[in-house]
Amino acid sequence: MIKVALMGHGVVGSGVAQLLEEKTESLAQKAGEPLYCAKILDLRDFPQTPYADRFTKRVEDILEDSSIRIVVEAMGGLHPAYEYVKACLGQGKSVVTSNKELVAEKGAQLLALAKEKNVNFFFEASVGGGIPIIRPMHLCLAANRIDEIDGILNGTTNFILTKMIQDHMEFSDALALAQQLGYAEKNPDADVDGIDACRKICILASLAFGKHVYPKEVYTEGIRGITLEDVSYAQRAGYAVKLIGKAKRLPNGKNEVLVSPAWVPFSNQLSRVDDVFNGVLLRADATGDVMFYGKGAGKLPTASAVVADIVHIAKSSQTSQSLTWKDSNADTVAPLSEYRHAFYYRLRGAVSQEKIAEGWGMVQNLDRPGRPTDEVAFVTGVLSEQQAIECERRMGKDVQILGKIRLLG
Amino acid sequence: MIKVALMGHGVVGSGVAQLLEEKTESLAQKAGEPLYCAKILDLRDFPQTPYADRFTKRVEDILEDSSIRIVVEAMGGLHPAYEYVKACLGQGKSVVTSNKELVAEKGAQLLALAKEKNVNFFFEASVGGGIPIIRPMHLCLAANRIDEIDGILNGTTNFILTKMIQDHMEFSDALALAQQLGYAEKNPDADVDGIDACRKICILASLAFGKHVYPKEVYTEGIRGITLEDVSYAQRAGYAVKLIGKAKRLPNGKNEVLVSPAWVPFSNQLSRVDDVFNGVLLRADATGDVMFYGKGAGKLPTASAVVADIVHIAKSSQTSQSLTWKDSNADTVAPLSEYRHAFYYRLRGAVSQEKIAEGWGMVQNLDRPGRPTDEVAFVTGVLSEQQAIECERRMGKDVQILGKIRLLG
Repeated sequence: MIKVALMGHGVVGSGVAQLLEEKTESLAQKAGEPLYCAKILDLRDFPQTPYADRFTKRVEDILEDSSIRIVVEAMGGLHPAYEYVKACLGQGKSVVTSNKELVAEKGAQLLALAKEKNVNFFFEASVGGGIPIIRPMHLCLAANRIDEIDGILNGTTNFILTKMIQDHMEFSDALALAQQLGYAEKNPDADVDGIDACRKICILASLAFGKHVYPKEVYTEGIRGITLEDVSYAQRAGYAVKLIGKAKRLPNGKNEVLVSPAWVPFSNQLSRVDDVFNGVLLRADATGDVMFYGKGAGKLPTASAVVADIVHIAKSSQTSQSLTWKDSNADTVAPLSEYRHAFYYRLRGAVSQEKIAEGWGMVQNLDRPGRPTDEVAFVTGVLSEQQAIECERRMGKDVQILGKIRLLG
Repeated sequence: MIKVALMGHGVVGSGVAQLLEEKTESLAQKAGEPLYCAKILDLRDFPQTPYADRFTKRVEDILEDSSIRIVVEAMGGLHPAYEYVKACLGQGKSVVTSNKELVAEKGAQLLALAKEKNVNFFFEASVGGGIPIIRPMHLCLAANRIDEIDGILNGTTNFILTKMIQDHMEFSDALALAQQLGYAEKNPDADVDGIDACRKICILASLAFGKHVYPKEVYTEGIRGITLEDVSYAQRAGYAVKLIGKAKRLPNGKNEVLVSPAWVPFSNQLSRVDDVFNGVLLRADATGDVMFYGKGAGKLPTASAVVADIVHIAKSSQTSQSLTWKDSNADTVAPLSEYRHAFYYRLRGAVSQEKIAEGWGMVQNLDRPGRPTDEVAFVTGVLSEQQAIECERRMGKDVQILGKIRLLG
């Protein structure tokens, strides 16, 4: 029997406990031995659960129990999760986490410690909830160099954008609906401002590039600024507006990593990933484009990813030596100003076609029903972020920028 | 150093040799040791390749070389692939294959032999080319019961159907174009008649249900009968016509497994999988719907899946005990007559609404531009295959069935 401990009995942790209880037999078959949830750390009591007797409020009860081989961290947040995980690895226990903040901020350190102690640190559930993504990238695409990752990594913002596109709801109404349905939290900042998506693209980028990409290095723009006018122009031109986490190898050896709303062409599979679903598109040198799609959040989807990590550890006598990345230097992420895309612009003011052509070069003009006569919208050619800003400056003070969204190439 | 041998230097085999040559360093890092292609079995000579000196025409040169730990079977066909793979496993060598016919017909036997000899028999490349699907199903969804699989598993037929839908090409013209572009073979039967898709759904169903599903047990219908009229009705009603391999657990403990054209609603992600791409949608009890999408064929995508299997074997001292299924009994696949779906029908003749209502019960009438007055098209409610045939009989001899396509629920 393999003893497992849980740290945190919230949404994910309780889902893990439930799956370990309900699927005892099939998991034992897959893991080679029965898995038993021996201890659960939580400050609250849960007298109604079938494992009410196994709760503890002391982390030492897990750390000091040498019979516990695998610990699940599902507390969320950086502290004390980081200290607890470090202590578990230090005690020679493998750790499985669903905590994207922890992996995005401390992944390189914890992976190094796991290697030193010859145990595993797994985090399939930290990106894409129940969608298999970390393990397929690491194991199934082992013969590939991953050149680009484009992901719809946050279900809440994807739900809001889908409502804006399909039902023409304003951002604020769509957010209120998401909150009402339990998809968005009362304080929705981490979702709406792209912070959650940023952590996830950092994890995928670190794995793809072999060097840790930290959230603070990544330009992150959320969806608060998206208007129904932007969505309308996009639809008529054959694009869906999505919040995209992007990581891409650049010719100079550095990498582009950013989170921002993007116009995604209808020909791209990601444009069809709607509602609370997530999708991750990988561009790999041998395999070409591969996409993974599914529910990026939720109790049982996320818990099932955690349990898959537990099963993997349980059935291997060896630790994974290859699921790892190095700490990064200043050269991993290129500065935003160097990134190159086409842009969508919506301007108001006395601006002539000549002036736009002078600024941006060749552009594709856009229209929408009800466009005011003093509104101009267009898509530029491919420019650097720096060039785009210079073009904006050239427009002068009479011209107001109402909308600016990157295009996914 | 881990020595690998290849059997077959065709499209896939040469791709594997190429990746092992070109990616020596990164593969060594991932596998923990260098991988070296020591022998290649082929009846032809390839004097231009950088490994021209390693070709052999005698399988014994591989079988009797105890330094070769892993053998790749990329010959295709059942014989002598089956005999060679059996001999390799018997010699204690792990085998990786891209041969879907071999796995679909002999999987249970070869997996049992591999287990007995304590070696691996891996086949990621046999379904979905470069798309990770076997390993994610087996490892990442370990905490799930897979209840249903719906797959677009054949790129050739998907290309033909896409041309029919998007460019209104007739089947024969679309097939000719596919042949011209190298997507279809001169003899296209295995693709067009669903035989290739059948082998792949058999492999996925065997893995999901834990019991071998044999191609001969699976009702298989290809796309030769699909007309532009069928496609036109489907589009207007919000469906795409796709060749779907389907496997589904039934309430009676048996399973529905079939290959047939299907109307796929636009709300289903599979309806958006176009051209030569493949997509596999899994319905899992904890994770919900998950889809994998990518190129289902091609030299390097398929070869990269083979190489991922090689890397997995190379870096594990243990063999996989859980990637396996039992041989099947007569109870695994339910008879076609019990399967239940809605159907699309297109009829010609003197048939009144009353007569249709009498036969099929509640139906949804369909229209298309240019519909002749003696043509009637409709979608039925959910019926068993048996009931559908009884309804057809009730129509009498004056009514001709021009089209009949299942709906994907």
